[in-house]
Amino acid sequence: MIERIDHIGVAVKSIEDARPFWERLGLEIGEIEEVPQEGVRVAFLRCGESAIELLEPLGPESPIARFLEKRGPGIHHVCLASSDIRAEDGRLREAGFELIRTEPTLGAGGCWVQFVHPRSTGGVLIEIAEPIAVEEPR
Amino acid sequence: MIERIDHIGVAVKSIEDARPFWERLGLEIGEIEEVPQEGVRVAFLRCGESAIELLEPLGPESPIARFLEKRGPGIHHVCLASSDIRAEDGRLREAGFELIRTEPTLGAGGCWVQFVHPRSTGGVLIEIAEPIAVEEPR
Repeated sequence: MIERIDHIGVAVKSIEDARPFWERLGLEIGEIEEVPQEGVRVAFLRCGESAIELLEPLGPESPIARFLEKRGPGIHHVCLASSDIRAEDGRLREAGFELIRTEPTLGAGGCWVQFVHPRSTGGVLIEIAEPIAVEEPR
Repeated sequence: MIERIDHIGVAVKSIEDARPFWERLGLEIGEIEEVPQEGVRVAFLRCGESAIELLEPLGPESPIARFLEKRGPGIHHVCLASSDIRAEDGRLREAGFELIRTEPTLGAGGCWVQFVHPRSTGGVLIEIAEPIAVEEPR
């Protein structure tokens, strides 16, 4: 079950350059984390039960670098929180959604994540995330 | 003060065509509302303390029609909830943000709303909303 909006991913050229804006808006930036398997550095700014995630490319091959080149900085994806990503993965496949990965993988902030392709969602890249404290998803 | 993500606005060609996807994802669609002053029909799908807002253009002059033409369907804006939009309006102006309207106006769902121009936010159209039960903002 989808429980809440976990975060909104925003593509930026540089977290350092983008953070003053979000701080002036009144949000507080947390630790900056590198997620090499996704080709990004990320920073989360808490906002109620959700967050804004700033995504900076680690190199020109990063999906975020390609997004910035094509569309410029801006909103990249929305992430929905689920308490059971394995079940969600199966349910969404059965419902006909095109999932990007063959199974959930480890993402930023200690979460298991899966992505739904914008082709099957009306143009919205949707991430599904399950925060974890253990090493294997259920 | 920014308290939570109120909603994420998603531009769609047709709410009727888009709703099966969001319902299969597990979200429930509420009433469909026309907001002629914004040139849109909208539908909210609750998701925790936030929502997904589907935005369908009422005609070819609608800002959403222009967005669809330029970028295709997808995420259009993020709306942050504040309990005092008048104060937020003043604070953001003082902080150097470019606000789109001269003052907060009535938006969808009985809210006072203001918009921050993507030029001053790194490419993100940000709406600030204060839900109201009275006719005038404070």
